Amino acid sequence: MSSTGAAPGRGDKAEKPPMRDALVAAAFRLFLERGYEQTTVDDIVALAGVGRRSFFRYFPSKEDVVFPDHERCLADMTAFLAAGSADADPVRRVCDAARLVLLMYAENPTFSVQRYRLTKQVPGLRQYELSVVRRYDRALAGYLRARYAGLRDGILRADVIAAAVVAAHNNALRSWLRSDGKGDAEAAVDHALGHVRASFGAEPAPAVSGGPGDVVVIVSRRGAPLWRVVQELEAALGRG
Amino acid sequence: MSSTGAAPGRGDKAEKPPMRDALVAAAFRLFLERGYEQTTVDDIVALAGVGRRSFFRYFPSKEDVVFPDHERCLADMTAFLAAGSADADPVRRVCDAARLVLLMYAENPTFSVQRYRLTKQVPGLRQYELSVVRRYDRALAGYLRARYAGLRDGILRADVIAAAVVAAHNNALRSWLRSDGKGDAEAAVDHALGHVRASFGAEPAPAVSGGPGDVVVIVSRRGAPLWRVVQELEAALGRG
Repeated sequence: MSSTGAAPGRGDKAEKPPMRDALVAAAFRLFLERGYEQTTVDDIVALAGVGRRSFFRYFPSKEDVVFPDHERCLADMTAFLAAGSADADPVRRVCDAARLVLLMYAENPTFSVQRYRLTKQVPGLRQYELSVVRRYDRALAGYLRARYAGLRDGILRADVIAAAVVAAHNNALRSWLRSDGKGDAEAAVDHALGHVRASFGAEPAPAVSGGPGDVVVIVSRRGAPLWRVVQELEAALGRG
Repeated sequence: MSSTGAAPGRGDKAEKPPMRDALVAAAFRLFLERGYEQTTVDDIVALAGVGRRSFFRYFPSKEDVVFPDHERCLADMTAFLAAGSADADPVRRVCDAARLVLLMYAENPTFSVQRYRLTKQVPGLRQYELSVVRRYDRALAGYLRARYAGLRDGILRADVIAAAVVAAHNNALRSWLRSDGKGDAEAAVDHALGHVRASFGAEPAPAVSGGPGDVVVIVSRRGAPLWRVVQELEAALGRG
């Protein structure tokens, strides 16, 4: 787990971890031992051996120490989206941006699973999580709105795709957390995001066998559900 | 605006409105005059001419009086989904369920617009709204999960479609609220939901010109983005 705290001795593995990490570790030890509601910021700073002001330098509130890496991850996501080239496939780009969140969770499975259980028990933390999810959603939608600017229904399309990407990501992430962090989280999220890309778009496939004129013919019954036809189409295009 | 309060004289239009409606009216008058944070439950009951216990009989907290109809709407939505036949198109059903929320807002545009402005100003109300949106999302996803039970990626599909429906609905609803409740909210929401149905599915179209064997042929360039091909497909199928 990385830290934004510039504590001394970061390069020296024999030193104690930076203050920010020490606060997170102390907080979680107390949350698991006593419960979240029963733990005060005073308890946390006493265990970490620092003052209250140090706590609030890193975390605006007790809730923030439960989710210490979302601010960094949101900043990383925003930077990643801004660095995309103008001809990058927009849906692929937001899917790749969503993977950054998964990677943050997968960096430390034990911590992520503990936090998941804690969050399920504390309504205030679930509320906090909803706000964080909303911020990721808005970051993705903001990027897509800019990419779809001027297109008919561009804002609608952006909002719907952002929501679908967040839902697919969270579906896979929560399955992994419920299974105690067992299994391949990245593969699960990639599969879920592939589902969204198949519904909403995909980058132009490289013209392997033909050229730009390479043509696909789909024959479909008129009454077939659209998503089934799209599945056939994906298969024919070698995607999905 | 309907009421769950069983106040006397409901059938008599000359009577004062039921107590629940009187509390909502008093609360909003004070919220707009003094601000949300500056208004207490005591202020509200004093203006409405009732006791504190009456307030808490109808509303668990001050936040709940801002959104007096979501509980009814959630119950209506759950009942509507449960009443659907087993062969109803699932995506169409959740889109129709989402329309119930829009209808609640459109019942009283002035109140809805006032509340929208108030919610934008008060972080606690935005949090409350996120929780409510999450409950609608879960109601839709729960229905879809049951309908897709046993299908490969059924839960993933359910979660993604529910999120897309909620995002499309809220996109149209918020546009309408931002325009001060001018314009046709229902048409805007129907258009947005049509976008989701086009991406994820549609009920089998009635066989107007042909029969079950009526066939559509799509010719597409292999490198074309999938969503463009789907747009062509929709046009060919006479949907969208």
